[in-house]
Amino acid sequence: MAHSGNIRAVSTDLEDLFAFLRFPSISTDSRHAGDVKACATWLLEKLDAMGLRTELHETPKHPLVIARNTHVAGRRTLLIYGHYDVQPVDPLELWTSDPFQPEIRDGLIWARGATDNKGQMLAHVLGVEKLLRENNELPLNLIFLFEGEEEIGSPNLAPFLQENCDALRCDVIAISDTGMVAPGIPTFGYGLRGIACCEVTLRGPKGDLHSGLFGGAVANPAAAIARLVASLHHADGRVAINGFYDQVRPLETWEREMWSRIPGAGDADFLKVTGSPTLFGEPGYSSAERTWARPTAEVNGIGGGYQGEGSKTVLPAEAFVKLSLRLVPDQCPEMIMQQVEAHLRQHCPPGVEIEIDNGHYGAPYITDPNSKYGLAAQAALRAAFDAQPVLIREGGSIPIVQTFRDILGADTLLLGLALPDAQIHAPNENFPVENFEAGIRLNQKLLEELAR
Amino acid sequence: MAHSGNIRAVSTDLEDLFAFLRFPSISTDSRHAGDVKACATWLLEKLDAMGLRTELHETPKHPLVIARNTHVAGRRTLLIYGHYDVQPVDPLELWTSDPFQPEIRDGLIWARGATDNKGQMLAHVLGVEKLLRENNELPLNLIFLFEGEEEIGSPNLAPFLQENCDALRCDVIAISDTGMVAPGIPTFGYGLRGIACCEVTLRGPKGDLHSGLFGGAVANPAAAIARLVASLHHADGRVAINGFYDQVRPLETWEREMWSRIPGAGDADFLKVTGSPTLFGEPGYSSAERTWARPTAEVNGIGGGYQGEGSKTVLPAEAFVKLSLRLVPDQCPEMIMQQVEAHLRQHCPPGVEIEIDNGHYGAPYITDPNSKYGLAAQAALRAAFDAQPVLIREGGSIPIVQTFRDILGADTLLLGLALPDAQIHAPNENFPVENFEAGIRLNQKLLEELAR
Repeated sequence: MAHSGNIRAVSTDLEDLFAFLRFPSISTDSRHAGDVKACATWLLEKLDAMGLRTELHETPKHPLVIARNTHVAGRRTLLIYGHYDVQPVDPLELWTSDPFQPEIRDGLIWARGATDNKGQMLAHVLGVEKLLRENNELPLNLIFLFEGEEEIGSPNLAPFLQENCDALRCDVIAISDTGMVAPGIPTFGYGLRGIACCEVTLRGPKGDLHSGLFGGAVANPAAAIARLVASLHHADGRVAINGFYDQVRPLETWEREMWSRIPGAGDADFLKVTGSPTLFGEPGYSSAERTWARPTAEVNGIGGGYQGEGSKTVLPAEAFVKLSLRLVPDQCPEMIMQQVEAHLRQHCPPGVEIEIDNGHYGAPYITDPNSKYGLAAQAALRAAFDAQPVLIREGGSIPIVQTFRDILGADTLLLGLALPDAQIHAPNENFPVENFEAGIRLNQKLLEELAR
Repeated sequence: MAHSGNIRAVSTDLEDLFAFLRFPSISTDSRHAGDVKACATWLLEKLDAMGLRTELHETPKHPLVIARNTHVAGRRTLLIYGHYDVQPVDPLELWTSDPFQPEIRDGLIWARGATDNKGQMLAHVLGVEKLLRENNELPLNLIFLFEGEEEIGSPNLAPFLQENCDALRCDVIAISDTGMVAPGIPTFGYGLRGIACCEVTLRGPKGDLHSGLFGGAVANPAAAIARLVASLHHADGRVAINGFYDQVRPLETWEREMWSRIPGAGDADFLKVTGSPTLFGEPGYSSAERTWARPTAEVNGIGGGYQGEGSKTVLPAEAFVKLSLRLVPDQCPEMIMQQVEAHLRQHCPPGVEIEIDNGHYGAPYITDPNSKYGLAAQAALRAAFDAQPVLIREGGSIPIVQTFRDILGADTLLLGLALPDAQIHAPNENFPVENFEAGIRLNQKLLEELAR
C-alpha cells in the first residue's frame, strides 16, 4: 500500500481508525447495546485527549458524543456531524474477513463501518487533531456532534437538538456520510432522498399447517404477502401507490445536463458497480436520475415458511415484508406513509389479517450548491483532491439534515468520501486508505475556507 | 388419561413408542443422517426380537427396514408400509415441549413423528407382536416395509422395489399415514393427492446493495420473487398456470353428496381446525372438496433480504421461493412441472436471472373403496373403532402408493389414524393415546379379515 505524507502519522491515524472499527456498534440489535456504549466511550476519550471539551449525553437508547473547542465571539461556528453506529453484518458468511477485525488489502480498509461512517467521521476528528497540534487552536468555532442511532433513524437526536438548540447554534453544518461519483473526483452533494420504513405482517392459520391436508382451503400468508408486495409496482417498475408521485419535484434541465456528463455516474457505471444482469427502473430516466431524484418502494426483506435446506411442505401461519420508500423533494414522509398504509390495506388479499408497523422516516433535502458556504465547500474539496468537484444529489438518506435545518436553521454541506463499491450496508464494506487521508486534508481545508 | 385394556401391556407399548420417538430422524437434514440410521437400527432390533426375519437395506441416503414372518404358500400376502423418518422441527420456539422428548398431556402424545408416522406405523408392529404372542403365528403372509426417506420423496424406494419386486410380491398393501375426519370416526381413504416440488431462486446484483444508493436503478430480487409468486394465482384463488386444470377429473356426484355429510369435514370444521380468519380457496367447492379433490400451488417458504430485528435498508442480491403443487387424478406430475417451469420463465420479471431446481414429485392416486380388499379394510375399521367407517380421499400425498401399484401391481388400503389437529409437519405434533391403542387393534382385525 502506498502512503503519502508522514508515514508515522498515517500509521497512528490508521491505528486509531482500526481501534474505532473493532467495536461492533450495531445500533438496531439490542444485544449490541454494550458495544455501542463502549464505542462512544472510546470516541469521547479520543476527543478529550485532543484537548476538546467533551460531553456524553445518554439517551433512551445510545449516547451522543459532543466536543467543542473554546469558542470566540465573532467567529463562524461550524458543526460537524457523524455517527459511530453501524449496520448489521449478516449474511456473515459472505464476508472475506471478520467485519470487526479491520484489515488492509489492495489499499482498502475492510470492515463494517469503514466507510459508513466511522472512516469518514474519524477523518474529520483527525484533521482537527492535526490543526490543533500544528497551531494549538482552530480558525473557527467548532462543534463535533456524533450520534449512535443513525442506522435506526436517529430517534433521540431531534429531541436533543430541540432541548439544546442554543448550545448547538451554528452557521453551517458539514457531514461526510455520502458518496463520491468515482475515485479521485470530489463530489459535493446538494440533495438527499428521504425515507419512510414499515414492516407488514400477514397472519393466517393459528399455526403452521400441512400443505397437503389443508392446502387449498385457507389462504397461504406467504402467497398473500407476495401478492401484496407485487401490488406496489407496475410491471414497468413505476410505483403503483395512488398519489405517490404527486408531490415529486421534476428534475431541472441543468441537473439532467450536468449529471449526464459526470464520470462514474453513467448507466454503464451503475451496471458495472451493481453487477446486475441488466438495469431496471422507472421508464424515462437515467440510472443517476432514478437514484438521485426519483422515489422508490423497495423490499428490504421478505420471509415466511420454511427457510432451511431441502423442502418442507408447510403452509405457514404468517409472513412478513420489510419495506422502505425513498422520497425526493417535495414528498412528505407522513403523507406518503398514509398513502402506503391505505394501499396495503386496500390490496391485502382475503383470508389473512394485516399488521403494519411504521418504522423511522425522514424528509428529503435540497439546498443551493452555490451559496457562500457551498462555494467554500467546493473550494475545500478542490484543494483536498486537487480536482474540480462535481455537483450531485444523493440517493441515500440522512434524515437529520432536514432536522438540522428545521431546528438549528442551518444548511448542511455534504462532503462525501464513499466510493460506489464501498459495500456499505452489505458484506465486505471497505474504504480506501487514500480517501481516509484525503478526508483528513479536507477537514483542514474546510476549516480554513470557512474561517475566511 | 384413560387407558382401556391391559394397563401393563399399554405401558410397555408406550415405552416402545417413546423410545422410537426420541430419535431425531429428520431425513431432509444431512446433519441428522446418524440419527436416522440409529432409528432404523432400533426398529430392526424390535422386529428381530418379535421373531420376524429382518433385513436392513442400505441406500445412498437412509436405510430400509424389512421384516417378514415365515410365508406359507396359498395364503394371502399383506405388505404393511410405514416410514420412520420425520419432518424438521423449526420453528423450535413454538413447541411447548421438546419435539424429541415425548410427553403425554391431556391424553395426547406430544412429539415430532407422534402421528407422522412413527405412532401409526408402530401400532401395526405392536399389533403383530400381540398376534404372535397370542397365537405364535400370523393368519397370513406378512411383509413389513419401513423406509427412512418418505419426507424427502422416497428417492431410493422405487429402485429398491424394482430390484426386489419378486421378494416383495403381495396381494394388497396397507398404510396408516393418513387422516381420520374426526375423533372416533374410522376413515377409509381411497384417494391421495400427488405432489410436485420446486425451488426458484432469482438473482440480481452481485451482492447486497444499499437501497438508498442503488434503489431504483436495478431490479430488486425480493420484489421480483413476490411478483413471480403472485403470478401463480388469480385473485379468486384459482391457479393461473396455463393448462393446470386440463387433466383434473371432475368430482363424482356421489362423492360430493357423501362428503357433504361427513362429520368433522364441514367448512366450519376446517375453519376451526386451521384457526384462519376466514376460509379461502377455489370458488365453487367446499373445503373438503378443495383439499381432497382439487389441485393447489402452495408457497412453502419465501425469503430474501434482511430477516432480523429492526430494519436494514438493503437491496438483496437474491431471493427464493419453495413451491409445492398438490395434484389430483388425472394430472401428471411431469407434465405439471413442465407447465410450472414454462410459467415461471415466462413470468420472471426483468432484471433478474432465474434458477429452477425441481424437487421430488409423486402421482395422485385413486382406487375402488368397495373392492374385496376395500371391504375387508372397512370391516377391520368398523371392528377396531366400533363405528361405521366413512370413505374419503386424502389431501396429503404418499407418492409411493402409485409406485406400489406400478411396480408391485397391488393397490393400497389407507387406514389413517391421524386427527385433523395432529399438527403434523408443524410445531406441537401430537397423537392420541387412544388412537395408538385403536391402531394396535386395527392391525389385528385387518390381518384376521384379510386372512378370510
